[in-house]
Amino acid sequence: MVDNVTGVLEVLGERWALLVVREVSLGLRRFDEVQAATGAPRTVLSDRLRRLTAAGILATRAYQVPGSRSRLEYTLTDAGFDLLPVLSALSDWGERHLAPGGMPEIVYRHRGCGGRVSVTLQCECGERTDPRGRLIAEVNR
Amino acid sequence: MVDNVTGVLEVLGERWALLVVREVSLGLRRFDEVQAATGAPRTVLSDRLRRLTAAGILATRAYQVPGSRSRLEYTLTDAGFDLLPVLSALSDWGERHLAPGGMPEIVYRHRGCGGRVSVTLQCECGERTDPRGRLIAEVNR
Repeated sequence: MVDNVTGVLEVLGERWALLVVREVSLGLRRFDEVQAATGAPRTVLSDRLRRLTAAGILATRAYQVPGSRSRLEYTLTDAGFDLLPVLSALSDWGERHLAPGGMPEIVYRHRGCGGRVSVTLQCECGERTDPRGRLIAEVNR
Repeated sequence: MVDNVTGVLEVLGERWALLVVREVSLGLRRFDEVQAATGAPRTVLSDRLRRLTAAGILATRAYQVPGSRSRLEYTLTDAGFDLLPVLSALSDWGERHLAPGGMPEIVYRHRGCGGRVSVTLQCECGERTDPRGRLIAEVNR
């Protein structure tokens, strides 16, 4: 079954990399765990883990499996945690626009109070801004 | 030259769909304009425009080119505007973690005051939350 973030990324394009970040953010650390949770083909998953590590989003640590050579487990770096607003924004969009209420979902909660965390667009003036027509874009290419 | 959002999506995977949304959000409406701005291969761009329209993110309107058959131009639907927090979150990440200060960038500004708009993670308790270790995830699959 498709959940809210997966649904967005199926619409929007390549999804494995962000899904890997999401699963690691949920506490999965090992290749087989992430593979089972995402359903990513093993060769694709290997590639994405390597690229995310090279990009400084994941950090690796070796662990030992008895009778086997050591393997890597994965954690988020600070840069990886900083992707959570992206995942949260994708998730909010999915919940709003893809089968609202009908999809499994992952909710991030505030460790302080347990309240639900979501993404808001906020102006430096302090006002929350509605993306529908309240923005102007400035391009500095 | 790679800008901040493009850089994120080059790391994170398929980038054309979100880049198309971004260019349309900046006011481009026609195939050739979007093609020139993104550099997407024409067949890829056709596919992404069709998929984004089918997903309800873009709306189309026919326009007439003298001596030619009518063509389509594209605008964001409300669901499309609702993707701006995703683009803003990707942009913020790119500016922070990919060559900060060294890349061309696109800034969304508040139509009310001209202030810069960015994405914040906010708890329903009202507190702004730091994604680095201040969140717990709840999975409702």
